[in-house]
Amino acid sequence: MALCSLERLNEKIKVFSKFGDTGKGGITRFSLSPEALEARAEFKKRMEAIGAIVVTDDMANMYATIPGTEELPAIMSGSHLDSVRQGGNYDGVLGVLTAMEAAETIVKENIPHRHPITVVVWTNEEGARFEPAMMSSGVICGKFNKDDMLASVAKDKLGYTFGDALKASGYMGDEANRMNPAKTTALVELHIEQGPVLEAEGFDIGILEGVCGMINYEFTFSGQAGHAGTTPMKYRKDALYAAVKTIQYLHDELDELDSKLVYTTGKISCHPNIHTIIPDEVKFTLDARHQDPEVIKQVLHIIQKIPAEVEKCQVCYTKAWARKTVTFTSELVDYVEKGAKELGYSNRRIYSGPGHDAQFMIDVIPTTMIFVPSVGGHSHCEIEYTPVENCLKGANVLLKTLLYIDLQ
Amino acid sequence: MALCSLERLNEKIKVFSKFGDTGKGGITRFSLSPEALEARAEFKKRMEAIGAIVVTDDMANMYATIPGTEELPAIMSGSHLDSVRQGGNYDGVLGVLTAMEAAETIVKENIPHRHPITVVVWTNEEGARFEPAMMSSGVICGKFNKDDMLASVAKDKLGYTFGDALKASGYMGDEANRMNPAKTTALVELHIEQGPVLEAEGFDIGILEGVCGMINYEFTFSGQAGHAGTTPMKYRKDALYAAVKTIQYLHDELDELDSKLVYTTGKISCHPNIHTIIPDEVKFTLDARHQDPEVIKQVLHIIQKIPAEVEKCQVCYTKAWARKTVTFTSELVDYVEKGAKELGYSNRRIYSGPGHDAQFMIDVIPTTMIFVPSVGGHSHCEIEYTPVENCLKGANVLLKTLLYIDLQ
Repeated sequence: MALCSLERLNEKIKVFSKFGDTGKGGITRFSLSPEALEARAEFKKRMEAIGAIVVTDDMANMYATIPGTEELPAIMSGSHLDSVRQGGNYDGVLGVLTAMEAAETIVKENIPHRHPITVVVWTNEEGARFEPAMMSSGVICGKFNKDDMLASVAKDKLGYTFGDALKASGYMGDEANRMNPAKTTALVELHIEQGPVLEAEGFDIGILEGVCGMINYEFTFSGQAGHAGTTPMKYRKDALYAAVKTIQYLHDELDELDSKLVYTTGKISCHPNIHTIIPDEVKFTLDARHQDPEVIKQVLHIIQKIPAEVEKCQVCYTKAWARKTVTFTSELVDYVEKGAKELGYSNRRIYSGPGHDAQFMIDVIPTTMIFVPSVGGHSHCEIEYTPVENCLKGANVLLKTLLYIDLQ
Repeated sequence: MALCSLERLNEKIKVFSKFGDTGKGGITRFSLSPEALEARAEFKKRMEAIGAIVVTDDMANMYATIPGTEELPAIMSGSHLDSVRQGGNYDGVLGVLTAMEAAETIVKENIPHRHPITVVVWTNEEGARFEPAMMSSGVICGKFNKDDMLASVAKDKLGYTFGDALKASGYMGDEANRMNPAKTTALVELHIEQGPVLEAEGFDIGILEGVCGMINYEFTFSGQAGHAGTTPMKYRKDALYAAVKTIQYLHDELDELDSKLVYTTGKISCHPNIHTIIPDEVKFTLDARHQDPEVIKQVLHIIQKIPAEVEKCQVCYTKAWARKTVTFTSELVDYVEKGAKELGYSNRRIYSGPGHDAQFMIDVIPTTMIFVPSVGGHSHCEIEYTPVENCLKGANVLLKTLLYIDLQ
């Protein structure tokens, strides 16, 4: 069977890396920015060149469809073209480029397929300029209210909304063009891992089983300010020390749970944050993720055991947000595995820690994902990198998967 | 013997609390600000009214002198009139007001004294708008270079320097008017404790033996950023966790040292400080103070035992600043104690944790200090408070001390 082309895929990566090029190996390509519109135009031009019909919906999601030999619901693949500030050339865009390459291979090699093949570009996945992330896939899957999303204000321009950017973009299409479950067979999204596991363990392909459930809590410790030079230790209510004790407690307890649990205390603030003043208020966040809801429950239990007072400081905490574990469609997961095995690529099953558009899609259509390794585990930064040879392996597994779906 | 007047001292406190009144119980009175100039004018008017001659030096330090019966070097007392932002009505200003009250009592009660009595106002003790703190006493004691100080830029106004504020104030006098060790017998500064010890232990008066030595270190932990959802725990280099472990180590070890040691981790920063990213750089400060240089050495030894790598993160640290222990003139310390005892005020010997202008003066003239309690240990805030009855006790001990010095 014909496979994807290294040269073509490499050329696609190189060309798309120019749109928003920071000059330092990465890109800044906020959704619907001039740079993102250049990337969209390039996408449209290339897809039309291989015979696709390109339409956009009311959230500027783009759908480029090459017809099948039968009147069947489309098989869909794609991701997003937007990036974070000083992001890399792989997160999101590689899912679009590999889907383009798979479609181009099907067309150029005349690979028979019954279903139409649609390459999709979701608008504003990163949420880097307009919050929230995964905005447009969220709207069409009913996760977010569209009017709320249109009113999302740009972080860098007072009063300028996502709705304004949408109108100005020229890519606002018809609501009737939205991905329609009745007209869609399945969705497969390829993405970089954004973590170190595949590379560290020497695997070419990650076969996604789902997206980990997660919880995010914010803890607040209230003590009493005092002068560093005058307050004897026994009189102190040091909010930073209370936070330190609690972070240590969380590590001690959470380390006893399943080894696949990941948890992070990524953000801390301290008031008044002056070297000669005892801190009177400290906050930190805890993010915890695991595929098994039972483990997440155990995390919650550990949080609930934190006393109301630590080191004479009051403790309170609030749930900032949470996500239930998402499980991808098992037949599709099996197809990805079958494809990787037939091609002789090393592979392992894995859960995604970060969120992706695909996690919303699974609620409405059969969905799965494919991971390729991220060198050094880097992502959301300019040094984000996956060798083109490994990108090609991902494209080939994607191609195989789309064709297995076509035959099912 | 005649003593100070509760009514007069209370009136002084009330009048001076208007200059920079925040309306919330405190003051914002940055050095040489319009509010501080009002306070200076009031000081000058009142001192001239009791027969003092008021001069200023080239750093705008003010000296109000009532003559003695002999041609002797002056006995000096005073403090500062400036405050931090939203500071209180006692830190600094009480040292000026009690010295004014002592001088007024001497004049009004015709208390014989051989030496001239000078009430001094030091410029910019707080360093709240122009750094550093204790600027002008530092210049005249040779601790700071005057030109550097004149070039100190206001924190709130680009390019506006302390030198500019000095010229605009109308209080820039002659260098010849500076406090001159040859013409000064001794200095006694009254101050609020700024800590909880005197109140908690039920003492009216703190007899200062000196100012604690201190060291201030900044620690930096360098780890590796990574996505909260993708990086297994075993691959992590979490700079915040390394900092937490080290803060805990410092507490465990430092708590074994002398119980009079005070130490504070008051400031922490975390990069990138995003709840879904493993921190790659965390810094925190350690401030440690003790009167005994041997204990400070033990603190240093504990710092030096921190390994170069904690939780797979690189650790480095730098000494931000340090101060050697200052010991006040023992005869003067004894006079303060004698005064408190004769007046029947409960008292204890104590070391100051914070710095004061007096700690620079001790290098050039015999110097000591008197503390009165701070309710709740509060200072540098609007609720800073010492009951006027206790302020009066401080003024009386100050008066006694000045007169003992006069007789020596």
